[in-house]
Amino acid sequence: MDEKTISQAVIGRLPRYYRYLGDLKDSGIERISSQDLSKLMKVTASQIRQDFNNFGGFGQQGYGYNVDYLYNEIAKILGLHNKHNLVIVGAGNLGQALANYMNFERRGFIVKGIFDINPNLIGKTLRQIPVQPMENLEEFIKSNNIDIAVLTIPKDGAVKTAEILVKCNIKAIWNFAHVDLNVPDDIVVENVHLSDSLMKLSYGLGQRENK
Amino acid sequence: MDEKTISQAVIGRLPRYYRYLGDLKDSGIERISSQDLSKLMKVTASQIRQDFNNFGGFGQQGYGYNVDYLYNEIAKILGLHNKHNLVIVGAGNLGQALANYMNFERRGFIVKGIFDINPNLIGKTLRQIPVQPMENLEEFIKSNNIDIAVLTIPKDGAVKTAEILVKCNIKAIWNFAHVDLNVPDDIVVENVHLSDSLMKLSYGLGQRENK
Repeated sequence: MDEKTISQAVIGRLPRYYRYLGDLKDSGIERISSQDLSKLMKVTASQIRQDFNNFGGFGQQGYGYNVDYLYNEIAKILGLHNKHNLVIVGAGNLGQALANYMNFERRGFIVKGIFDINPNLIGKTLRQIPVQPMENLEEFIKSNNIDIAVLTIPKDGAVKTAEILVKCNIKAIWNFAHVDLNVPDDIVVENVHLSDSLMKLSYGLGQRENK
Repeated sequence: MDEKTISQAVIGRLPRYYRYLGDLKDSGIERISSQDLSKLMKVTASQIRQDFNNFGGFGQQGYGYNVDYLYNEIAKILGLHNKHNLVIVGAGNLGQALANYMNFERRGFIVKGIFDINPNLIGKTLRQIPVQPMENLEEFIKSNNIDIAVLTIPKDGAVKTAEILVKCNIKAIWNFAHVDLNVPDDIVVENVHLSDSLMKLSYGLGQRENK
């Protein structure tokens, strides 16, 4: 099994499989056929089989998939059994929403520090973590084994902060700023461009009205 | 020009073009070649030409693209010149973050109402819009020409709310809940699954460590 040859498209679909398998697990379902999973997820059974074949199959012909096993194998592939310390840069509403989202912690993402430039927010606590001034960021990352920085700040600040993060050898950036960051290739960047998403919705609305 | 034949992949790239062209416009740049745009956006010039050819090209051979014209044409394709009224269901941190994000209004998305089940939030105002109880949602949508509902609530509430929205003939749902909604095909659904995004980042981190 050579994971390097797996396409980004397949990787992109794994979180959705993981989500459905988690729901099945929570409902006490132990086995599921690719046909039933196909109906549930509204993708073809052949797509499911092809996707899972990338990772060795996970299933026995005719017996369906073992939900718990599959759930755990996908978690392993996605690296969800690892723990990662993160900092949130930007303690506004979005930063607060992410800090308060407990599910991230269940998946191994631990919020260690929160930073902001707004003096009114400094010292405020979010889930018992005090908001610190930006000046502390570099030192904090270096001394607290931080892998991931979450950027929930406007684009100008994000570009400047990314430069600091590169200096600190950050491993990954989860970027909510409305800009593509220019960082070395060995830093993993996952963008959430909310405006882009809203524009796609707008396009869909336009198409709907043209029908 | 038959927009129906344009692939989802091309549509998915338009918001990013729009974003870069907006930045160029703000910097006072009037013309750009596909080569320069290619360097800036880190996609091949041939990809750019192919993408734009889907919509009639927008450029004259040898003269590059007119930034302002291209920006406006993409806005038209994405339907950004239309105004859409929306409601936000869920006045927690994420709902507040979206309500406060002025850029959406610039793009024609007008927040008309905000709803929550939490009695402590009812009557609170976000950008001068009072938070209303969920009981008012159906009537409000029907009488205020609402096209879009933004769901920033947990998944159980989102599934129930989607049923109400279907009854009200909502046109589009911008879904932040960690669940795929089961709604008729004529409702445009754009999902932002933050956990899925974080899992992709986790996978990237795992790959990085295996190198």
